Parts: sequence; structure tokens; C-alpha cells
Amino acid sequence: MLNKFRQSYSPEFPKISPESVMEKGGTSCVKDGEEIKKLFPKTFGRPICHFKRGEGQIEEVLRVGVVFSGGPAAGGHNVIAGLFDALKKSKLYGFLDGPQGIIDNKYKELTQEMIFPYRNQGGFDLIGSGRIKIETEEQLAAALRTALTLNLDGLVIIGGDDSNTNAAVLAEYFLQKNCKTKVIGVPKTIDGDLRNDYVTIPFGFDTACKVYSEMIGNLARDALSAKKYWHFVKLMGRSASHIALECAIATQIDWAFIGEEGQSLEQITNTLVDLISKKPYGVILIPEGLIEFIPHLDTKQLPEEIQKQLATEKDPHGNIPVSAIETEKLLIHMVKQKGVKMSPVPHFFGYEGRCSFPSNFDANYCYTLGMTAAFLIKSNLTGYMAFVKNLTKPPSVWEIGGIPITMLLNLEERKGKMKPVIQKALVDLKAPHYLHYKKMRANWAHGNDYLFPGPIQFFGPKELTDSVPLTLF
Amino acid sequence: MLNKFRQSYSPEFPKISPESVMEKGGTSCVKDGEEIKKLFPKTFGRPICHFKRGEGQIEEVLRVGVVFSGGPAAGGHNVIAGLFDALKKSKLYGFLDGPQGIIDNKYKELTQEMIFPYRNQGGFDLIGSGRIKIETEEQLAAALRTALTLNLDGLVIIGGDDSNTNAAVLAEYFLQKNCKTKVIGVPKTIDGDLRNDYVTIPFGFDTACKVYSEMIGNLARDALSAKKYWHFVKLMGRSASHIALECAIATQIDWAFIGEEGQSLEQITNTLVDLISKKPYGVILIPEGLIEFIPHLDTKQLPEEIQKQLATEKDPHGNIPVSAIETEKLLIHMVKQKGVKMSPVPHFFGYEGRCSFPSNFDANYCYTLGMTAAFLIKSNLTGYMAFVKNLTKPPSVWEIGGIPITMLLNLEERKGKMKPVIQKALVDLKAPHYLHYKKMRANWAHGNDYLFPGPIQFFGPKELTDSVPLTLF
Repeated sequence: MLNKFRQSYSPEFPKISPESVMEKGGTSCVKDGEEIKKLFPKTFGRPICHFKRGEGQIEEVLRVGVVFSGGPAAGGHNVIAGLFDALKKSKLYGFLDGPQGIIDNKYKELTQEMIFPYRNQGGFDLIGSGRIKIETEEQLAAALRTALTLNLDGLVIIGGDDSNTNAAVLAEYFLQKNCKTKVIGVPKTIDGDLRNDYVTIPFGFDTACKVYSEMIGNLARDALSAKKYWHFVKLMGRSASHIALECAIATQIDWAFIGEEGQSLEQITNTLVDLISKKPYGVILIPEGLIEFIPHLDTKQLPEEIQKQLATEKDPHGNIPVSAIETEKLLIHMVKQKGVKMSPVPHFFGYEGRCSFPSNFDANYCYTLGMTAAFLIKSNLTGYMAFVKNLTKPPSVWEIGGIPITMLLNLEERKGKMKPVIQKALVDLKAPHYLHYKKMRANWAHGNDYLFPGPIQFFGPKELTDSVPLTLF
Repeated sequence: MLNKFRQSYSPEFPKISPESVMEKGGTSCVKDGEEIKKLFPKTFGRPICHFKRGEGQIEEVLRVGVVFSGGPAAGGHNVIAGLFDALKKSKLYGFLDGPQGIIDNKYKELTQEMIFPYRNQGGFDLIGSGRIKIETEEQLAAALRTALTLNLDGLVIIGGDDSNTNAAVLAEYFLQKNCKTKVIGVPKTIDGDLRNDYVTIPFGFDTACKVYSEMIGNLARDALSAKKYWHFVKLMGRSASHIALECAIATQIDWAFIGEEGQSLEQITNTLVDLISKKPYGVILIPEGLIEFIPHLDTKQLPEEIQKQLATEKDPHGNIPVSAIETEKLLIHMVKQKGVKMSPVPHFFGYEGRCSFPSNFDANYCYTLGMTAAFLIKSNLTGYMAFVKNLTKPPSVWEIGGIPITMLLNLEERKGKMKPVIQKALVDLKAPHYLHYKKMRANWAHGNDYLFPGPIQFFGPKELTDSVPLTLF
């Protein structure tokens, strides 16, 4: 079985020394600097940290905790493996079922034997995950108790934008309480919306897009063979359209809507009518966040079923549960209203991309992120997010380091209050990969340029097994 | 890209001589022998044909047509490649967009250069496919005209049960009209419902199940990691539950319903309530044909949306379009009505499994089927279906031959008339693989035995790349 073979895969990573080199000069944040500084007096403005090529390893015996926060993404287990291997003789505690495990001090001590079966495997099931945030005074105090009880030198929080905001809050809190526990964030999310100059992509995005692109390519080939169906594919990814853009470039299907373009429902419908009147088959990609970007959306015009879905409550992070809104069916409805004949097939690709075996890219990247998190703790840094740069190059020349999470913060309204949060990275309409797509899109709409990426390969030519997300270029 | 690497894969096949060896004694059919014999006076009762291990090759220069009929299945292009390679210097005509291409005499002459890019690729797009049947007197006469115009020695029809019935009708018609064109059927359908003692599995089933099992395994890992969702996965497959059974054994998820068990909606709901009350996550497989087997289904009790879907018209083959009935949502509705709390996620896996790159199994099997079809034509046999036996063994020891399609026929009602059709092979409730599943099912329902098959691999250990459908054992 594949899982056995993958257990023995040795992730590639750069040979780097754990001695930190701090940049000269401090950092600020994306917006609202004064307010953020007041909220994070002890952690704001710290310099960026780099680790340079070299031998060396962590000699200290440390005590470190690790936790998964939020939805799964491929490669999470390799963050733990990279962390464990870099920490050498230290103790590693895995908190169970997400941040609730920190609050309740529920953990398991991770050993070589326990980790081995999970190396290069999908999922977060070694220790589980959860969506609870540590934010109330009570929850913060409980986390502090756990840190003190276990005498932790470090705590690694593997999560998305909200979980990393939380890591910054916890780091500041621990410092204020004179607790030695360093808090380090690791950027995870298949949605791809945690991006900046240092974290050029979060982990899990590559694998998710490859799983979706496999399926989308299969649908494109099906469209071309049966010449009968229009496939309307909604893709996970929350607000941002990164996944749709990556998959569109990977498969060259007829059309992908990019929410960030801010088209009206009328414009979207006209584009579809135009495409669908020209041939009886094709593939359309719809980012699940598309509906959030539609200006002046008069929900009273929408089908009753969609109105109900839109009226659903927001989740604890303030997000509309866009996955549950059947935008693919809404668009089919809009096209049919225009009297266009077609055989539409709705699809939603989401959960099946979160827990795949990680691609070599994500396996290597995550292992390196885990190692980087260990180095940051060893360097006594707290409130930092691990980064790996140069990701389009082979792992041997990747560069690693950490940035203060406060750098990424601004104030946004959550449940009626202004809160410090990491600004979500939307698709940049000036980025080369978007401009490339925009240029090619009209040609690809003829449906003669489909690509069929096929399933992720773990053996064979390196150009297949070690390919990198296309939107990184 | 994977497509380039796959073009150069050399399918494995047995070394067999094209000299036919006919079994002693004729054949009958599954039921209604007298009536079938009357309908097929010239083709009924012929003996079974075998080809024995040996060297030799087809020396004759023949003129052969080939057509895809019905929905795509992985490996179709390799049937054409195997046929082309075995026919050597013969001419091969590919009829365009299904049987309509025969009626209209629309084809392209296939050459080495044209076929090469399609070797070991998914889809039917080299020549397209279609769902039209050749059955009226006019359509039969048009097909005869094409056969005569192109002076065809043979015509290979690649299709499912209905298309192969059609091949038998055409073979009989050609003989009655003294036309020399031999008609050969090749068993295709991802649904797996074209099975008998000789055709132990149709092509495309293996790949489709591997694609679905990849996704189901990913969902199982997601369930185990997030511990939050019940995934209700409807699977393509028409009436029969072969796909659900194969995927259930491959992934060991919580539960797969098998339509052939004939459970009432009440029993199905009780099983679900029982499973879902025990833990907050899991994976359920639902064959799309399940609803057809539910006895005494009072449709007036069902949600309005499902009632509408059930009232949809049957397709030209007399099938309810079960793919369009949201059985997964019906079952979610039934469980919710019982007051059970859960976070359900509905899925439908279907089209994405029909046009994948074929697994090595399907690539080898299809290539061998194509070669067998060529041998049957060379042996002057008509109204035969190509078969490859011993499929659980390596291709070098596979055995090939042909059976009269009439062997598989019985009379069934279609649009109020009794028609000769191939009896659909349902899941055999006495077969070892079903009994194995039935025995293991209660254990697997605890959710601790999930398997994660991962994506189809084309390089690396042969035990991964060349695995065989589990329900063949």
C-alpha cells in the first residue's frame, strides 16, 4: 500500500544552522500601527530572523508543545516530523484535538515510533485538530497553566490566519505573564490566502490544488469525449480565488471566475451565456467565495434555496460558511433563466483535497517548516511565524527564518468590535500569474487547450513528482 | 507532463497466436432461449472461441471500423491502440461521435501518428462517443450502406450492455443481408455490471474505482482529523452496487449500502441512525442505484425536491437517470427527521472517474481486448464479444477469446415491448467478495480501520502500479 512506501520517503530540506541572524532595524505592520503596537507592547516591532546555510544542530534539551488548529491541510504531520527530528533529544508534546487540548492540558508525548507511521501521510489524525480559539481571559489563563505545568520552552501552533493571530496574542500574553514559553506559528491553509513577502504560500495549497486539478482535468476529458455536459465546479478556498486561479492555469479549462475581479451577477451570467452558446460542453470553475465579491447583490432575486443558504449564521471566525452555498447551482439557474439550452452538472471539490497524501512539495516544505519552528524556539523568539523562501527552487537552496506575526496584523471588525487580525491575502490583480491567466483566458475558452494533470505521482521523473504551484511564479 | 510519459508506456499483454480454437458444442443464452434463437437465427448458438499461446500475427490486410458507444471509461484509447497494432498493415477507420458516425459514414482513418498521443490516455476524444442506438430499420440500412461503402471486414463496437446487444443485432442483420462485415463487441462500463463467466469485469471499472477510492480515502482521513463531519458519498454505477462494494473494500469506511440487499428505507435509516449516534464523524457510501431497490417506496413521503427528480423521464435505454437523484440528500433528510444531530456533507463522485488516465490494469486489459477483437475478425467470427480471462494474474498468462453475444441475452420489457437485452449483472449476494464485505462491515463501522489508497501511481513498485480490482477475487 502507498502509505507504507510514503513512510520511508526522506523529505528534502536545506542544510542550515540553527544560529539565528537578526535583520537590522525593526518591523511595523500592514496597517493601524499605533493601535497594534498598543495591543502588542512586548512583541511588536521585532526584527526579522534568518538562518544561514551551515551544519550545526540543536544541542539544547527543550520541552515543546505542538497543536493543529482549524481545518486539515496536507503535510501537517510532516511539520511535526520536521520539528521532532530537529529537536533531537527534546520532549515533544502533541496537544489533542486542537487548542482545546492546550486549555484542558490534554496531550500525548510524541515518540519516534508514534510519528513514524504518519511521516508523509495526509491528515491531522496523529493528534487531531479543532476550531476553538484561545481568546477569553479564562482561556488564556488556562493555556498559561498548561505551559507552566509542562514547563514548556516552546509552543508551535499550526494554523491559518486566525490561528496565527491567536499565536501572536498568546505570545504577548505569555511574555506579559513572564512565562518563558515561546509561541511560534506555522502557516497552514489550503485556501492559499495566508501570503506575504516571506510566506509566499501556506502549506497544503499545493496538494489541494493538485487533487482538484486531477479531477478537473478528468472532467475536461469527459466533456471533450461525451461532448454533452457543462461541468460547473465550485472550489473550496473561502473568500480568495487562489485555488480557482491555480487550477485554471493547471488545466486550461474554459473559464474560471476570479472573485477579486468584482464582477456583477449580470456580467458573470453574460460571460456564461456567451461561452455556453458556442459549444455544448465545457468546464467552468467557481471559487466558493465568488458570491462575497458580487457588488449590489439583490438576494431577493435569487432562488429561495440560495437565499436560505445565504441567511446561515457566520462561524466563530466571522466567516460566512461559503462552502454550504450552492453558487454552482445559482449560476446554472441564472443561465437557464436566459433561455440557454445545456446539460449542466454541478460539482463541489473541497474536503477531498484537504487530507490527501501531501505532494513532495508539501512534504518537503512542511518538514522544513517544522525544522524552522524548532530553530526559532531555540533562538528564544516568540510571536514569530516560520517561513521558507525560494520555494520555486530545489529544497537545497531554500531559505528559512521567521517574521513577527504582528507584521501581518491590522484592525478589522469582528462581531461589532475592532480586532487585530492577519489581513487575508486576496488574488493580486497585478501579479504576473493572474495577468498571465487574464491574457490566456479568451483563448482557452475555445476548449481546445485542456490539460490533464492526472494524479499526484510519488515515484518516477522528478519533474512530475516535485512540481511546484504555478501561481508561485 | 504525465501525458507525455504515459504515451511511452508499453502495455503488457499475453503472447498469443491469432489462430482460433473453437470449443466443441454450441452455446445457449441466459433465458428465453426459444425466442432469442428466433430473433438471431444466423448467430445464435455458436461455439466459444479461444486463442492459444503462440507467436504468429495477422498477415491479412483487412479493413476495420471502430466506434465508441455510450459514456466514457478509462482505457478506450488503448482498445484502439491494441486493435491498430494487431491489425498491422490493415486500414482502421474510427467512426466519429458514436454510432451516429456509422449511420452518417463519418470517420477518420486512424494512423500511427494520430493514435500515438492517445496511447494510455483517458477519455474517448480521439474519435468521440455518442448514445444513439442503431435499431430502426432505417438506421440498420444506413449502417449496412456504410459497411459496404467502406468495404469493411470488421466493425468493433466498444460499449456497455446495450451497445453490445446492439452489436449482436447488427451482426445478425449483416449476415442476413449477406454483408461480410464481422461485428465484434468490447465490454466497456465503469459500472461493472457487464460480467459473466468469461468477461469477469468490463474495462474502466478498475480506474473509476481507484479514482473514487482516492477521494473516499481522503474524506476518511478528513473525517478522522476534523472529527466533525459525516460524509455521505453517492457513487455512480447505475442499478448495480459494484462500485460501492469495490470502494468499500478498498477504503474500509464506516458503511456502504448495497442496493441488491433490498433494504427498506426504514432499515437504511435505522442503520444510519445507529452509526451516527455512536460518533460525530464518518463516511457512508451510497450507490446511485440504491433507490431502485428500495421495496414499497412511498414517494409521497419523500422531500418535494426528490419527488421531482424521481419523476424525470427515462433515457433512451429505459434507465431512470439515477445520477440526477440526490439520494445522498434524501438519506441526510431521513436521519435528520429522526432528530439525530450531525454535520453532514453530501458528495457525488461520478464523472470524474470516467476519463482518468487508465490504471496499468485498464491500460493492459484494454490493449489486450483490442488485440483480441482483431483476432476475432481475422477468424471470421461475428456477433462475438472479446474476452480476457485470468485477470488477477500477470498479463503474460492472461487467456483471450470470444463468446457469442447471444449467450448473454434474455427478453426484457423496454417501452412496453419485450426486447432482447444483455442481462445486467448485479452484485451477487453469494460471491466471496460480497460475503467478505458483509463479514467485515460491522467491524469497519467503528471507523478505526480506514485505508487511504491515495492516487493511482504509474511509476514505482509494481504492487502499487499494477494492482487489480479487489472484487475480482
